[in-house]
Amino acid sequence: MSAYTEFAAYIAELNDLLCTLNLLTWDVRTQMPPAAAETRGQQMATLTRIVQERLASAELGRLLDRAEAEVRADAPDSYRVRAVRSVRDAYAISQRVPPALIGALAVQRAIGQRVWEEAKPANDFARFAPHLKTLLRLSRELADAIGYTDHPYDALLLQYEPDMNAARLTALFEALKAGILPLLRRITAAPAVDASFLYRHYPAAQQRAFGLEIAGKFGYDFQRGRVDASAHPFEISMTRQDVRMTTRYQENYLPGAIFGLFHETGHALYEQGIAPELTRTALASDFVGLYAVGGATFGVHESQSRLWENQIGRSRPFWHLHFDRLRDYFPTQLADVDVEQFYRAVNRVQPSLIRVEADEVTYNLHIMLRVELEMGLLDGRIDVDDLPALWRRKMSDYLGVAPETDTEGVLQDIHWSAGQFGTFPAYTIGNVLSAQFMHAARRAVAGLDDALAAGDYRPLRDWLAEKIHRHGRTFGLDELLLRVTGEEFAAAPYLAYLHQKYGELYP
Amino acid sequence: MSAYTEFAAYIAELNDLLCTLNLLTWDVRTQMPPAAAETRGQQMATLTRIVQERLASAELGRLLDRAEAEVRADAPDSYRVRAVRSVRDAYAISQRVPPALIGALAVQRAIGQRVWEEAKPANDFARFAPHLKTLLRLSRELADAIGYTDHPYDALLLQYEPDMNAARLTALFEALKAGILPLLRRITAAPAVDASFLYRHYPAAQQRAFGLEIAGKFGYDFQRGRVDASAHPFEISMTRQDVRMTTRYQENYLPGAIFGLFHETGHALYEQGIAPELTRTALASDFVGLYAVGGATFGVHESQSRLWENQIGRSRPFWHLHFDRLRDYFPTQLADVDVEQFYRAVNRVQPSLIRVEADEVTYNLHIMLRVELEMGLLDGRIDVDDLPALWRRKMSDYLGVAPETDTEGVLQDIHWSAGQFGTFPAYTIGNVLSAQFMHAARRAVAGLDDALAAGDYRPLRDWLAEKIHRHGRTFGLDELLLRVTGEEFAAAPYLAYLHQKYGELYP
Repeated sequence: MSAYTEFAAYIAELNDLLCTLNLLTWDVRTQMPPAAAETRGQQMATLTRIVQERLASAELGRLLDRAEAEVRADAPDSYRVRAVRSVRDAYAISQRVPPALIGALAVQRAIGQRVWEEAKPANDFARFAPHLKTLLRLSRELADAIGYTDHPYDALLLQYEPDMNAARLTALFEALKAGILPLLRRITAAPAVDASFLYRHYPAAQQRAFGLEIAGKFGYDFQRGRVDASAHPFEISMTRQDVRMTTRYQENYLPGAIFGLFHETGHALYEQGIAPELTRTALASDFVGLYAVGGATFGVHESQSRLWENQIGRSRPFWHLHFDRLRDYFPTQLADVDVEQFYRAVNRVQPSLIRVEADEVTYNLHIMLRVELEMGLLDGRIDVDDLPALWRRKMSDYLGVAPETDTEGVLQDIHWSAGQFGTFPAYTIGNVLSAQFMHAARRAVAGLDDALAAGDYRPLRDWLAEKIHRHGRTFGLDELLLRVTGEEFAAAPYLAYLHQKYGELYP
Repeated sequence: MSAYTEFAAYIAELNDLLCTLNLLTWDVRTQMPPAAAETRGQQMATLTRIVQERLASAELGRLLDRAEAEVRADAPDSYRVRAVRSVRDAYAISQRVPPALIGALAVQRAIGQRVWEEAKPANDFARFAPHLKTLLRLSRELADAIGYTDHPYDALLLQYEPDMNAARLTALFEALKAGILPLLRRITAAPAVDASFLYRHYPAAQQRAFGLEIAGKFGYDFQRGRVDASAHPFEISMTRQDVRMTTRYQENYLPGAIFGLFHETGHALYEQGIAPELTRTALASDFVGLYAVGGATFGVHESQSRLWENQIGRSRPFWHLHFDRLRDYFPTQLADVDVEQFYRAVNRVQPSLIRVEADEVTYNLHIMLRVELEMGLLDGRIDVDDLPALWRRKMSDYLGVAPETDTEGVLQDIHWSAGQFGTFPAYTIGNVLSAQFMHAARRAVAGLDDALAAGDYRPLRDWLAEKIHRHGRTFGLDELLLRVTGEEFAAAPYLAYLHQKYGELYP
């Protein structure tokens, strides 16, 4: 057996365990009876511990040494070289992070989430604050163990977005704010758009039927997946052969489930599009974040969901083609609505308190606010006790609205209670990338917009699969972007997209 | 940390892995998209390998030595002593069975099932025969590795029914045949019972609603489980907090799904009734069969399902109480049927070719036929090539009917193709035990039959939970039976039950 084959067999088992963890997670969120939470937690902790032990083991060190020697002559961008390099990076981190710290973080994350679940509805930030402080202390220890040059946030970003760092994000945010804030001021001064008909009664079964129809048109393969309902929509994969997604149905608000399904379909097309030969390899496994996922980074993954949800699913050509079909499902609810009214309603811009309800223009402002706060929390410029006031001030500065309660403010998201610092940037990175990718697709694929307007999504999907999906985690954000678009990461195409679309909607 | 605590922590992780395997199995049978079969198989193989490695490890040997020394002063029937003993037994077997043989069996089982799936509909026994021969050769090797005194079947029974052996089963079968064959001859000479109304159109949704209503009355806790549909009904548990069951709906045959649910509810009550302190212990883990299961043995488990399905669910008092409710769900289908007609129809005795469709009287004859054949195959008295003819002869001798094809004969069950030799006896052992337990319950619980006739199932359930369920795998079949009933294993109570019930139905 060659050294690489032995290495690959070891990694295949690790991927099996990560995929199994994904299934346990899927089951928790969609099927599991409520009383099973505690024992399921123990089962997941055991599996996670086994993965961590195997990832940090001396045996893997030896396999890596031998595999590295063997692939030295391979092309530097070959799958084998990249698989070995990716595991080497994760292995190096595993050697620097003490198992006791991982254990302490796991315990504190569980406690933090439990306290947050009670503190949020009770509007009781003071109750949550000491736990957030502990999570921040442990996260700073984690950053120190992983190591960084400029900012502790950079070390935490290694888990989600390794090419990014605090300085790059700060520059990105300045560019975005300079483009978005003036646009938003013009929009909020314009007359409000009527979207009241979106709040009529829309039965879930028809929402689901329409959503699945579109998911199929986008290219989702139902033989290699399934669609369920859950409290928070998500996509999760147990290899490219089993890519599941969920959505949430609100019968008194139409867009939620439908655009949710478009969004998750974007994620799912990514996972289903990974090359078969990457199945069970390191290039379909995130050994830093400990997650079986085939997308290059969180941000690149998000670019695919945003692309199908917004650039396609919220576009005028899409609705001019599909609105009649939607009206087949809801003939009375949409009897007095025309396609332009509908298009304007689902693209209505309205500053609001809640991130997950935000439109395309204001969404990134919610993200920037959070990322700026978490950077400050980590480097010590911001104290936990000052968070509620800072939150309100930034909301007011960026969005012109401020929450009356912490429930609708600093307590609204689960992320920090779960000790996740560094995942929020992915949403904005995804938005920015989606415009760069769409721009490149239009250059590369002749007649792309005609095909899209005709409902032929195959040319776009095939191009995305060929350029992005099939490579799995072979390339990082910057290298992938350069190969696909020939460009560096930049906010300009995304800002141009926003200005063009919303300049026309809010003249 | 005490030696026992260390041992228990090691075992808890093993139980977590077995429970995880159970969830993967449940998902395969109820949720998994079809294209995922191969990668799911790899995931399950990896988990199984990890369990086997940990079960055979020198570390477990050391933990066992130390725990044994520590629990020496405990009561001999205490949970700690029994947990250690049970793991010692499994560990001893793991040391005797070569890993290469386990691997060869796993490969051959997968091949055998695949070939069987094609050979069965094609009525092509010759195609399946060489694979069955290989499976038998490997199973004899397994029996030799495990070790036995009298018969290779005894070694294989250790995986499912350790107190049983070929000699005991042979004696049991003689007693059953002596009681059942004359009864069956009388019944087949009697006028046929009309059951045609059971084959009307019964929508699945109402079948489900009625079945769940009864499962709830029997005591199934929906907070700690869920009920799905699957091609073959089963119950499976991921700790007592998560006990799931399935059934299969046939819209043109009412009894299948309903009695299937009663049956699985019996299994589920067992698993839900295990003492909380046995969660994640060896007494909720089968380390010989490699399965997270809390029931003492396969046969004892089956006694609980048969008890609720047949002794309760097919009884006259049950239907006199619940028939009106069933008719609420199916008012037109059952408009011209009265409760006595219904009771007689669901207890109709009719020799048939297919085991899973058999009634209470003929069911055990199907089992005996199989067990006699598999004993002969293992000890070499029977050649695989003679199986189809032997099958037909035994069917004719026992049931008075014989299959025209092997599809309806020797190829009908999946068990042998999966290399399972020794699981069939559990069905008959369960029937026999169900009568002994029911007999003991009537002696022990004052007013039991009045309560049952009034639909109060709590006295029976509580007695079963207290005497049987809560102990998990603490006691083997014989010891448990003695503790619960004060009796040895015996066919007489079951035969008395059959003669009384069917003597009255077929006078």
